[in-house]
Amino acid sequence: MKMDKAALAAFLDSDFPQVKDMFTVEAVGTDTLTLRMTSSPELLRPGGTVSGPAMFALADVAVYLTILSQIGPKALTVTTNASMDFMRKPAAGVDLLCETRLLKLGRALAVADALIFSEGDARPVARASLTYSIPPKG
Amino acid sequence: MKMDKAALAAFLDSDFPQVKDMFTVEAVGTDTLTLRMTSSPELLRPGGTVSGPAMFALADVAVYLTILSQIGPKALTVTTNASMDFMRKPAAGVDLLCETRLLKLGRALAVADALIFSEGDARPVARASLTYSIPPKG
Amino acid sequence: MKMDKAALAAFLDSDFPQVKDMFTVEAVGTDTLTLRMTSSPELLRPGGTVSGPAMFALADVAVYLTILSQIGPKALTVTTNASMDFMRKPAAGVDLLCETRLLKLGRALAVADALIFSEGDARPVARASLTYSIPPKG
Amino acid sequence: MKMDKAALAAFLDSDFPQVKDMFTVEAVGTDTLTLRMTSSPELLRPGGTVSGPAMFALADVAVYLTILSQIGPKALTVTTNASMDFMRKPAAGVDLLCETRLLKLGRALAVADALIFSEGDARPVARASLTYSIPPKG
Repeated sequence: MKMDKAALAAFLDSDFPQVKDMFTVEAVGTDTLTLRMTSSPELLRPGGTVSGPAMFALADVAVYLTILSQIGPKALTVTTNASMDFMRKPAAGVDLLCETRLLKLGRALAVADALIFSEGDARPVARASLTYSIPPKG
Repeated sequence: MKMDKAALAAFLDSDFPQVKDMFTVEAVGTDTLTLRMTSSPELLRPGGTVSGPAMFALADVAVYLTILSQIGPKALTVTTNASMDFMRKPAAGVDLLCETRLLKLGRALAVADALIFSEGDARPVARASLTYSIPPKG
Repeated sequence: MKMDKAALAAFLDSDFPQVKDMFTVEAVGTDTLTLRMTSSPELLRPGGTVSGPAMFALADVAVYLTILSQIGPKALTVTTNASMDFMRKPAAGVDLLCETRLLKLGRALAVADALIFSEGDARPVARASLTYSIPPKG
Repeated sequence: MKMDKAALAAFLDSDFPQVKDMFTVEAVGTDTLTLRMTSSPELLRPGGTVSGPAMFALADVAVYLTILSQIGPKALTVTTNASMDFMRKPAAGVDLLCETRLLKLGRALAVADALIFSEGDARPVARASLTYSIPPKG
């Protein structure tokens, strides 16, 4: 592991000041990571549900941090593909937890998937799979 | 067509007050729609590029409005699946335009795809395909 | 569980005679299933690798059987969406194993994901997520 | 254009002998291609519909040939991601036509999308988007 929980939190603070209050790294393992998104009125859609773009952001940041935990802070690592299924309405006023699995870490591409849960409910509200392009060494 | 450009703009104002300043309906056709996302510092990532979640939001809202233009304002219409490819870095400080195509409008599911462009550049920065679940008549 | 391993094997024999020799149900659990695709020269691409469409078929049939194990034999259940990442070259001349997870079983839609492995290698060669439309009771 | 219709047909014959009778290149344009899949009992599922894996194969080969038309015959070009929506039941006993658009042709990755039609019907039966990894020059 190149970046542990503390290093990822510091990276989030310095490089993503706009979203650092939304996200908290809960756990980092070998090729896995859990990211919390704090419930907030700004993320809601009419009806009290968390918006799709907010869940996309959660999965995107969670997978990004999962990759950085293995390769270190490479700011040029970018999302090239994402696929999501929105399966259940998230519980209102409850934090979301995103659990990732790094499935491939190649020289040029990394692939991971993720499940998103309303805290306290074992049924996933969404799933995501993302591909990131990793900049070449130079 | 059940909702024209003016009706969609009014719906965006009343039902999505948090994002209404970001988005402008540019054109509505038979099964097509163009949505503008105004350039804003809040949408940017380090490096000056528009964030993936912001582009997801653009595609999501654009397809949502495309479907509503055909079926009228059904607030319970929700995204069930989304797939995106991020292909080029959007130009800094430039509005994004999202052009949609409604490919299927069934009783229960609607499918559309979309291309996103930096204004003034013919090469797409991203593509998206989305499925929406339409609530049954009652 | 509505269909166990023997019932699924019998269904595959009777309803999918063209592919029944390719596939074997290895295990069925609560919301999980493992399907084997027997290695065969017909499935190969130049270079000795299993073709993408063959892996798609494996994931598609595996998820279909996973859903049927829970709801019984509904022949009108059809794939509406599929997303796959091809991550590693499958080993030549080796069976593939597809392990599924049923993530949502709703009245109208079911969502599952799957990992595909070359037998004997713990690194997945592909991942898939699929949505099926379930016909209404009547 | 590096390979025209005749060159692509010859490539299909020599490198894909197992499927050459299924597919015919109908047209090749700048960043577009139309591929025909001849109707055949072997491709059918119970109910007379073309199977999902057969449509996946059609989209996969069509996009592959679209890329080769621009870069020439690079056998190591491989699919890394695919997303498909199956929207309507294909007509029984009718050829399918797949129309592609090359959206990005980078040094390492190419992205295209495709619509699949039953011949004679303007409503698409399926859509696909695919990413291919292009081998580096050596």
